[in-house]
Amino acid sequence: MPEGPATGDETVTVSLGERSYPIVIGSSLLSRRPETLRAAIKGTSVLVVTNTTLAPLYLDRVVAALKGAASDGSSSSRPLSVHSVVLPDGEQFKTVESLGLIWTAALEAHLDRAATFVALGGGVVGDVTGFAAASYQRGVPFVQIPTTVMAQVDSSVGGKTGVNHPLGKNMLGAFHQPNLVFVDLDMLATLPQREFCSGLAEVVKYGLIRDPAFFEWLEANVRPILDRSPTHLARLIRRCCEDKADVVAEDEREGAAGVRATLNLGHTFGHAIEAGLGYGAWLHGEAVAAGTAVAARMSAKLGWIDADLARRAVELLEAFGLPTRPPTTMTPELFLSYMRHDKKNLGGDIRLVLLKGQLGNCVVTKDYDPKVLDEVLREACEHAQKLGDPIAVRA
Amino acid sequence: MPEGPATGDETVTVSLGERSYPIVIGSSLLSRRPETLRAAIKGTSVLVVTNTTLAPLYLDRVVAALKGAASDGSSSSRPLSVHSVVLPDGEQFKTVESLGLIWTAALEAHLDRAATFVALGGGVVGDVTGFAAASYQRGVPFVQIPTTVMAQVDSSVGGKTGVNHPLGKNMLGAFHQPNLVFVDLDMLATLPQREFCSGLAEVVKYGLIRDPAFFEWLEANVRPILDRSPTHLARLIRRCCEDKADVVAEDEREGAAGVRATLNLGHTFGHAIEAGLGYGAWLHGEAVAAGTAVAARMSAKLGWIDADLARRAVELLEAFGLPTRPPTTMTPELFLSYMRHDKKNLGGDIRLVLLKGQLGNCVVTKDYDPKVLDEVLREACEHAQKLGDPIAVRA
Repeated sequence: MPEGPATGDETVTVSLGERSYPIVIGSSLLSRRPETLRAAIKGTSVLVVTNTTLAPLYLDRVVAALKGAASDGSSSSRPLSVHSVVLPDGEQFKTVESLGLIWTAALEAHLDRAATFVALGGGVVGDVTGFAAASYQRGVPFVQIPTTVMAQVDSSVGGKTGVNHPLGKNMLGAFHQPNLVFVDLDMLATLPQREFCSGLAEVVKYGLIRDPAFFEWLEANVRPILDRSPTHLARLIRRCCEDKADVVAEDEREGAAGVRATLNLGHTFGHAIEAGLGYGAWLHGEAVAAGTAVAARMSAKLGWIDADLARRAVELLEAFGLPTRPPTTMTPELFLSYMRHDKKNLGGDIRLVLLKGQLGNCVVTKDYDPKVLDEVLREACEHAQKLGDPIAVRA
Repeated sequence: MPEGPATGDETVTVSLGERSYPIVIGSSLLSRRPETLRAAIKGTSVLVVTNTTLAPLYLDRVVAALKGAASDGSSSSRPLSVHSVVLPDGEQFKTVESLGLIWTAALEAHLDRAATFVALGGGVVGDVTGFAAASYQRGVPFVQIPTTVMAQVDSSVGGKTGVNHPLGKNMLGAFHQPNLVFVDLDMLATLPQREFCSGLAEVVKYGLIRDPAFFEWLEANVRPILDRSPTHLARLIRRCCEDKADVVAEDEREGAAGVRATLNLGHTFGHAIEAGLGYGAWLHGEAVAAGTAVAARMSAKLGWIDADLARRAVELLEAFGLPTRPPTTMTPELFLSYMRHDKKNLGGDIRLVLLKGQLGNCVVTKDYDPKVLDEVLREACEHAQKLGDPIAVRA
């Protein structure tokens, strides 16, 4: 498995023919391997996109690494002209307006088609930057430097880019694969705990939908993971990237009958929560965790999985400090109204990812008893009413 | 050459592997062949995008054709749900804001990934609708019903979609091929003469860059073309579509060394005129015509073509009622400032399409004496100063 230099860095390849690219994972990558980053830059100009939280932490170092003035003393053979743009921080800024900030910065810097965009940030920065790159002059290359667990294990890999619309999450975007995903594990050190945990919702997902051994490893290693043990984080992130790379290689554009849709476990419920609360109130992973709990309970109620598996899923999410019930403001009607707008629906019915069979198996289907969906949503909302808002409780 | 039913309709295929699609050209297609249009619709929902000028003329008929209630009495086996959105008319509305109108209309109509967008209009409607389709839920299919010469011979074919940015024309967009280009020649009957002539700039272009026999046919048939003789229009549009289809099949995404860039003859100068005047003051083809005249004169001054060929190019454009000098407000400095932002530039220099050799040959190059560019721009602007604004004169 280990590849690359003897530093213990890992390289996972996303195999997509001529659009294949590496995910390089390691500690202190930015200072140790700036040349890996520079080698992924096409042309002579770069636009680094980040946000107000990350800019003071990492922007100067990333710019220095791109310019070849990094601590390794090496220098690039090509001088790169490096520009940057800083977006406001938060899911509520994953908008067409933020796209406009990036496009305008690129045009003001006179960037042409030979420029490369670099996304330095979490899922929002990565998704917005990717869409900006996909559409700038009908498409320029881009590189992901994911700074959150969420982005490192999920959103930076696979080429889904986009922004939200007031009427729905991720409704506008493009499939646009990066040239490189550059995962410097040191960047997780500055990640607030709530964001760290949010990313673990996607980690649990891989275990539930396709990777039973990994799920069991997670159950057995909750403590060191929450303590951010470097060896545990390296293993966790590599494994998720391998899972994601396999899925994306098989079904790049989420075909109607394809496997990629399984990555949306918990997301249809979760998107309803995010939209219902207003983007940014809950973090994406928090909404996905609550959605995953609903999906697991529904799967058990349909008789598709053992009740014990649903319980383990909920317990692991809770062990990772994640909510497993919706906010108190959600009603079954609100859930259904948002869920009917979901991109995964083809033709009107609500398509869901549900667990079926042993741990690690799932289906994407509209063929379930809609009464069970109504019942599970009612119970989940009643549960929330009784116990109170899970995020408010935790805060 | 003729294919399809005995009605004399023509079908030109754009060969792009699994993204191949037909351009169907004929008279009264909308009433005679609504089933051809319906067959290109994927899914069960359609969003027709048009503008305020065309909506009263054609929207009801297109909606009826899509719904299967056309005059042929046939009806579709699948009932289609047909929605529409009407944009303001004009190049100045080829904006991100217009994209937003389309996206919002699609979301309000609850359209999912299985919807198809239909562009009913000229180049602006086609380009904006295509980009909206490319980005709606990361991509839905679309169909072009071009209503202008410009769109029928050029912009509706080949998958270039996009919008303008205040800092540059067509700076934002995507490559997104349509499922079908449906050219009903009858729609040209309502086209104002100024728009009709504007499209002829692109027609002349095909002759100059690759099709000497066609150029000579145009020279010999100016009168019947301007009189919109149906047989002449059918031949002219088919031939341009064949030329465009060949170019696009060879170089879909305008590679750095590819042939597609030759389609931009006159466009780098023309875009500078459009941007300098403010989008919409001159029509696109008018700016391209003036730009083509500048490119032809520059080619002759470089010694790359005979002075006689430059003269024939200018004379044919003038015979078609098109301007061959810039507006009086343009200066050489203004030209150069806008031209440096052009998408075709890779690395800073100004890349131009110039004629070279016999009629029908051209090159895309940065390797020319920049003094000749300066000289030609100065002469063109002085010429305009002396003779006055060519569009104002014509109006």
